[in-house]
Amino acid sequence: MRAFAPFTREILKIDTHAHFFPTIGKEEAESFMFAKPPWLNINGDDSAMMMDGDTEYRLVQSPLWDPVDRLKEMDDNEIDVQIISPTPLLFSYTSDPKNVARWSARINDFGAASCEANPQRLYSLCQVPLQDIDQARVEVSRSMAAGHVGVHLGTHVNGRNFDDPEMIRFLHYCATEGIPVLIHPWDMMAPERMPKYMLQWLVGMPAETHLSILSLILSGAFERLPTDLKVCFAHGGGSFAMLLGRLDNAWHRHELVRQDCPRPPSEYVERFSVDSAVFDDKTLRFLLDVMGDTRVMMGSDYPFPLGEIHPGEMIKNSELIDDATKQTVLCDNAANFFGITND
Amino acid sequence: MRAFAPFTREILKIDTHAHFFPTIGKEEAESFMFAKPPWLNINGDDSAMMMDGDTEYRLVQSPLWDPVDRLKEMDDNEIDVQIISPTPLLFSYTSDPKNVARWSARINDFGAASCEANPQRLYSLCQVPLQDIDQARVEVSRSMAAGHVGVHLGTHVNGRNFDDPEMIRFLHYCATEGIPVLIHPWDMMAPERMPKYMLQWLVGMPAETHLSILSLILSGAFERLPTDLKVCFAHGGGSFAMLLGRLDNAWHRHELVRQDCPRPPSEYVERFSVDSAVFDDKTLRFLLDVMGDTRVMMGSDYPFPLGEIHPGEMIKNSELIDDATKQTVLCDNAANFFGITND
Repeated sequence: MRAFAPFTREILKIDTHAHFFPTIGKEEAESFMFAKPPWLNINGDDSAMMMDGDTEYRLVQSPLWDPVDRLKEMDDNEIDVQIISPTPLLFSYTSDPKNVARWSARINDFGAASCEANPQRLYSLCQVPLQDIDQARVEVSRSMAAGHVGVHLGTHVNGRNFDDPEMIRFLHYCATEGIPVLIHPWDMMAPERMPKYMLQWLVGMPAETHLSILSLILSGAFERLPTDLKVCFAHGGGSFAMLLGRLDNAWHRHELVRQDCPRPPSEYVERFSVDSAVFDDKTLRFLLDVMGDTRVMMGSDYPFPLGEIHPGEMIKNSELIDDATKQTVLCDNAANFFGITND
Repeated sequence: MRAFAPFTREILKIDTHAHFFPTIGKEEAESFMFAKPPWLNINGDDSAMMMDGDTEYRLVQSPLWDPVDRLKEMDDNEIDVQIISPTPLLFSYTSDPKNVARWSARINDFGAASCEANPQRLYSLCQVPLQDIDQARVEVSRSMAAGHVGVHLGTHVNGRNFDDPEMIRFLHYCATEGIPVLIHPWDMMAPERMPKYMLQWLVGMPAETHLSILSLILSGAFERLPTDLKVCFAHGGGSFAMLLGRLDNAWHRHELVRQDCPRPPSEYVERFSVDSAVFDDKTLRFLLDVMGDTRVMMGSDYPFPLGEIHPGEMIKNSELIDDATKQTVLCDNAANFFGITND
């Protein structure tokens, strides 16, 4: 595992779920030969339009691509450390893997360079061409050697869930290489059912995350993967915690559910972490009760519109969580997970 | 509202989520001209195969169609009253509405006749051809006059969610006629993503229910519907409670979320109920905290394999719920919702 520079001040809050988007314009994006390349259309006023090919995707502000502006907002929000990860729109799992390997390298180099603005406060996760595990292994190792602290994966690759042998092979590689994994929903199921009101983000995303966790559990993948694999799911694990009772009951009652999974699903909760991005104090309390205090890490989804307005405030102001747990969730769990120390 | 016969004994447990399937064989099912008619292939040993056209769907036992055997199991489980509803496979929303109107009448008459085995302990919900609201109104009124105590609807009709004006028109009719509505997931989204491990039931169903609740809230339908509409969602409302924080945060932060919904989504929680079928004590406690004690009603999903093994036991044995709340959830809320009295 890479050695980290010591912190120059006490860590108070580590935000494990924060995104970046590189300053890639239309012309450069098109050079990678994707059907719909994502790119950034920067305006003159510190805003930009995230583009999905020719489609306007989301209006964003400069901290998304400018680490100096990002650090200023971190100061305002009293966030000490951010783990920055590529915006999921960048994953490009549907395109030719050779091109996506080059594309991922470009994005990852941008992420690593961004952290140089303050290496004690900014750490980056890389992305990989997960549609080709051999190339994904090359890029994740190249990126880790270049200073990344983990890898950021989508919840599925072109409809293949995390029971897919190739995706398990990649997780196995991450485990043996000591590479932490953050899994984030993207390319949400059944978009035709969710045309309005951001329902793809409100219903589709938590269902995607739930599906990816259950695919790992019910396929027996956790039985085969090394126990020291570090894997964390975004948005509090989506719908998982609420539905674990339903899952355990189904496992006990139906052979189809337990056919590849030798133990009750709740026994695998100790094998993964989730972030705290649930935006409600009662829900966070419930999440901690289900996952355990050491498996929830502060994550805000900064700087996107469905993220926490003031990252870390919900935990800091919680009336249902004691101070020791606040310290654990705001800092210690993430420091352990990503191997960040302030010694 | 229909007057109910007085109970001959004290009500202790009302199970609001219990299914029946009529004894319709292949030949009769085919006479309704559906592409894949559901029917029951009864064996000689008190078991049967639920059929979906020519496909074996699920092995079931005689209490599903025989009310005498049902009442025996209710005795064993100490369930005083069941609200029985058609198995969702029977909805048939994709077929010609005229045929489905006849089909629904056949099913509903079977449900009403089943209740005659003990009218103090068995009450039925009807189904309707929800793809044609005029015919749905006729059938629901005919069924209510014949003794049903409410209507059982799927979470969507051929991909149209509960923000669809026609579906809202039907709910409006139910409100003005005083007809309680139970909404149950069916025909789950993205089946191609969930081919194994009953993932359609474990991920798809709670996502369907979540989507139907959010469609009602975010479309502003609750603003237009009468406040005395009685509507309940199955399986504890699916993923809804866990994701209400995410929903409220999104409503505050994004115009796309609040465009048709004038108040924060959590303010609409008082407009609907959920059943208690979450199969875990912590989860039920959380559900009560989110929904409020008067909006959770005992439901077991009897007699299906993903239901509660001993209906009502989880609530009865809960260490996180006080006795007054147990009485409310096991009995009083359902009695109020369905207009069942023991005076």
